[in-house]
Amino acid sequence: MKAIVLFSGGLDSTTCLAMALKEHGSKNVIALSLSYGQKHIKEQESARKIADYYGVELIEYDVKSVFNGSNCSLLEGNDKIPEGDYKSQIGVNNKPVSTYVPFRNGLFLSIATAMAISRGCKIIYYGIHKDDATGNAYPDCSHEFNAYMKKAINIGSGEQVDIIAPFVDKNKAEIVKVGLQLNVPYEMTWSCYNGGEKPCGKCGTCIDRLEAFRLNGKEDPLCKQ
Amino acid sequence: MKAIVLFSGGLDSTTCLAMALKEHGSKNVIALSLSYGQKHIKEQESARKIADYYGVELIEYDVKSVFNGSNCSLLEGNDKIPEGDYKSQIGVNNKPVSTYVPFRNGLFLSIATAMAISRGCKIIYYGIHKDDATGNAYPDCSHEFNAYMKKAINIGSGEQVDIIAPFVDKNKAEIVKVGLQLNVPYEMTWSCYNGGEKPCGKCGTCIDRLEAFRLNGKEDPLCKQ
Repeated sequence: MKAIVLFSGGLDSTTCLAMALKEHGSKNVIALSLSYGQKHIKEQESARKIADYYGVELIEYDVKSVFNGSNCSLLEGNDKIPEGDYKSQIGVNNKPVSTYVPFRNGLFLSIATAMAISRGCKIIYYGIHKDDATGNAYPDCSHEFNAYMKKAINIGSGEQVDIIAPFVDKNKAEIVKVGLQLNVPYEMTWSCYNGGEKPCGKCGTCIDRLEAFRLNGKEDPLCKQ
Repeated sequence: MKAIVLFSGGLDSTTCLAMALKEHGSKNVIALSLSYGQKHIKEQESARKIADYYGVELIEYDVKSVFNGSNCSLLEGNDKIPEGDYKSQIGVNNKPVSTYVPFRNGLFLSIATAMAISRGCKIIYYGIHKDDATGNAYPDCSHEFNAYMKKAINIGSGEQVDIIAPFVDKNKAEIVKVGLQLNVPYEMTWSCYNGGEKPCGKCGTCIDRLEAFRLNGKEDPLCKQ
């Protein structure tokens, strides 16, 4: 059975890719990397290296202009990315954080579904996880969003496609645990939102990542380099 | 309140646009026209003329390469579009018809949602209707698909966006009835899948359209020209 994996080159989606590869084999998996004007476009270099490492087909697709007009701080040209963990950034009205990219996962899943039917793939994997959904920080990472989107995709594709979110009820530490067992090359991944030479260690995703390795009794191999 | 209308330049979406304009006014409506490699790209000329007629902003966006590999007969370079009404084309296994474009409405709604949040729009209109969902011909036009997608979009956008499908439980004759009351310039619209100089009168959408006008005791103004 053929599968598409939403693949940013970050920690979660690389672990997701490793799971899909174990299940289906590299000849039956397509990795899909989307560029959307993100400041950390550097993650795409990681995506290319990791796809090469695993010998898997990589499709790159650009949707940058969809977000014209957005004030999302993750996008090039907009405000600075806030420092501190996600919890400190959640607004009083349960509003998404400033790095929430408008309906990103819904858009990416829809593109992947159209590509899946076009290319004879039956499954889409994506790496949303519980931490990102906390306090509605990223509403398109929630268990509820995933449940409705899964149904919409299954029905709207004429039952040709199903989506799998293996980490929807897991936190990042649990993802790292899975990835360590699968020997995921975490030193090749990129997470930091600021896309500098080294991870900033101060943005929400850096803090989350460092803590995830610490809870597994490991040092992040990316920070050792 | 600002709204985006999925707008192909065809009969259904032009009626939908007229409804949105009546509700919100032309300054608060954006029409979104997607090109995806359709044979009847001619419909985009109609979309431009009608947007101009109503004085409404038109965004054009291309997603053609998403469908690379698809054998959908509506797409350029693929098999001939079948003749006859949709009912005669429905397969034995309740499979989508050959002109079903992979998850088109899911993809278009997701693009519209990302654009809506980016541009401060709260509502998305789209013109799916009952005839297209009959026998699972177009599964992304069904009442059920719409219900799940509506929830996924509302939740995944952090309750910033809602979708409205005013014709989801109506047939094409009922849409024409609404449109005639709103003085929709149907002579400017384009529906025929073959995109020739004049409508072929033989494809599923031509047959459906002619019948819809007949049931309203009118002649299709496009065929009078």
